[in-house]
Amino acid sequence: MEHSDLAYLGRLFDTFYEVGALPDGGVTRLGYTEAEDEMHRRFTALAKELGCAVETDLAGNTYAYLAPADEYILIGSHLDSVIEGGRYDGVAGVMAGLLLLKRARDERCLLPLKVAAFRCEESSNFGCCTMGSGLVTHQLKEGPEQLARLTGKNGVTLGDVFARRGLSLTPPRITGVRAYLELHIEQGKVLEETNTRVGVVSTIAGPRRWKLQLKGLAEHSGATPMSMRQDALCAAAEIVLAVEQIGRREAALCESVATVGVLQNSPNALNVVPGAAELGIDLRGSRLDSLDRMEQDTLSAAREICQRRNISLTESKLSELDPVSMDPSLQQGLMAAADRLGISCRNMPSGAGHDAMAFAPLFPTGMVFIPCEKGISHNPMESTSLLSILDGADVLWAYLTATR
Amino acid sequence: MEHSDLAYLGRLFDTFYEVGALPDGGVTRLGYTEAEDEMHRRFTALAKELGCAVETDLAGNTYAYLAPADEYILIGSHLDSVIEGGRYDGVAGVMAGLLLLKRARDERCLLPLKVAAFRCEESSNFGCCTMGSGLVTHQLKEGPEQLARLTGKNGVTLGDVFARRGLSLTPPRITGVRAYLELHIEQGKVLEETNTRVGVVSTIAGPRRWKLQLKGLAEHSGATPMSMRQDALCAAAEIVLAVEQIGRREAALCESVATVGVLQNSPNALNVVPGAAELGIDLRGSRLDSLDRMEQDTLSAAREICQRRNISLTESKLSELDPVSMDPSLQQGLMAAADRLGISCRNMPSGAGHDAMAFAPLFPTGMVFIPCEKGISHNPMESTSLLSILDGADVLWAYLTATR
Repeated sequence: MEHSDLAYLGRLFDTFYEVGALPDGGVTRLGYTEAEDEMHRRFTALAKELGCAVETDLAGNTYAYLAPADEYILIGSHLDSVIEGGRYDGVAGVMAGLLLLKRARDERCLLPLKVAAFRCEESSNFGCCTMGSGLVTHQLKEGPEQLARLTGKNGVTLGDVFARRGLSLTPPRITGVRAYLELHIEQGKVLEETNTRVGVVSTIAGPRRWKLQLKGLAEHSGATPMSMRQDALCAAAEIVLAVEQIGRREAALCESVATVGVLQNSPNALNVVPGAAELGIDLRGSRLDSLDRMEQDTLSAAREICQRRNISLTESKLSELDPVSMDPSLQQGLMAAADRLGISCRNMPSGAGHDAMAFAPLFPTGMVFIPCEKGISHNPMESTSLLSILDGADVLWAYLTATR
Repeated sequence: MEHSDLAYLGRLFDTFYEVGALPDGGVTRLGYTEAEDEMHRRFTALAKELGCAVETDLAGNTYAYLAPADEYILIGSHLDSVIEGGRYDGVAGVMAGLLLLKRARDERCLLPLKVAAFRCEESSNFGCCTMGSGLVTHQLKEGPEQLARLTGKNGVTLGDVFARRGLSLTPPRITGVRAYLELHIEQGKVLEETNTRVGVVSTIAGPRRWKLQLKGLAEHSGATPMSMRQDALCAAAEIVLAVEQIGRREAALCESVATVGVLQNSPNALNVVPGAAELGIDLRGSRLDSLDRMEQDTLSAAREICQRRNISLTESKLSELDPVSMDPSLQQGLMAAADRLGISCRNMPSGAGHDAMAFAPLFPTGMVFIPCEKGISHNPMESTSLLSILDGADVLWAYLTATR
């Protein structure tokens, strides 16, 4: 039985393997692009092979289920990736969902399962995360006009992308969800370092994202004395290090993190003192007080640095999501199920955002983490084992079949 | 007479005005592109209008002269620009040359003048400066194979560009030059701040250029604890600030400058800890000991920072030019000529590189600077006055007609 489960997971992984594959390993499957479409087509084919009905919604998400029901237990995750990302982030959860559909079919179990493959969970294409799940739960903070103006990596706006695909930025809110469950790789090292087989998520950290635009003066790099410069890149460099320092302090206090992921230098030429720079900043933590402190300290540092260097500063908040708690009784139920199976388990926060964030305010929501190698994610080296995916799926199954 | 000179300079400026013009002011006329070609076509038309013969060489440079001679006094500068640059850098010197050709024709003066418009003086397209003048003087440190591999902003190699244009990376060395003279905007604030009408250049600072490639680990920005990161951008930021610090110290000692003009962050996404970064560094000074110190200290700082942060570092020297002294008797002659005309003048170093660097090792070479507004250059706001160009041209003319 276990052998056949592993073989099936292997086949699922192989089916998705080559989509968006890069020559040097890793994949790029950006949300609302052809690579992500191909992932959804393969998901659809796999679900139909199990005898499932398949439907899509107005945000482009795909759903599979064995039999119609008024209310489902929704098991979901996403099929897009970051630029040069790995093959497990999101996909592992969808694979676990398909495995449970197969198990329900094989065992003629009448659990009302529905498996969801969400669109564009990563912010890599449009700078906005959990797009597919956020749209159908009405949980995105951005309004439809704001979303329509977001521009993808290829220069096309989300409004145009949705229009061309016949999708809607104002889809009806999803209904008929009894509970939402998601399996995901941890994307950190806690499970691996503590030799634990699964994690049950307590809280998902809230990301706050800022864009800072710095404007100095582009001048000749040879003829502009050091004392007369308004070098936007030097100011940006100070901000990068200030954000790191703030992140380190808050990491010690409450396991928060702070990252400058984006730096665009301009005109970016060897013989010109940089006249402008743009920074993209990502602050995350599971405590609101820590998020507030990081946000305030980042802005204060940027203002002080830019004022001292005679650089003009424009601040824009890109997005904000508060930390989200998982349903307490679901957490207990999942921990108890792991315990019954003899699978080591710990209750832990999630530093990364997930589709579960969008469902938690509406429906009882729970998440199961599985270890990934060295904690590496959003990187071609990202890896986990099929055995770990099976561990997580087994815990979900044990919980669902016990509470039926 | 002066009115007619100014009117002619005005017409020259207007003729070049719209080439490579950008919507928000400034120009982009990259070396060996269509915009630069158009500048050379207009230069040719203007020279022919004066009754000049026009010829080109195998590096694509254009020359104009009134009558054949065995030896010429060459007056030159360049017609390309940086990305989003100004309209005077280089062009002012070519305009002064055309004005002197016109004056020689109008006054039936038998001075053997030749005016040169050089190609690709800026490193903005291929990362290598004084390409046109350096090729025909055999003064480029890079060999033809190395040059052929340089890749332009549009992704095409210099080798392909030259092949398509029927040019040669190994042209014969230029001969028949009695002296080389160049007028250029200062690209600094010394003349303006000291209220001086022209400068006579003593030494041109030597640029040393390095590319540093940093490799860390791209990981999930939310789930990678601060203490476990190998953030390439944070290391790059430290290096940017170290280079600025080194430049400030050497500025105080010997008026050197140090600039990080290029920073390429990768993958440059909001939700990924930066895994790689590339820096382009430009060090300039008129003293070799200062250049050596800056180079050593920059590399030491980069190595220390990368080692401490567990980032791998690849160092490549892009180019190196030693400081170049102008001919002493030419300096004296130009100073004396300004004095006779009652034009205030100072002897001064040049922080920026110029085509004159390529000629100085072979022929008596001199340079005249004119002020530019606020010292701003390599920027759309770059500006000087036609009166200042006329001042510089008058000094060159007074020197040439006195020494005839």
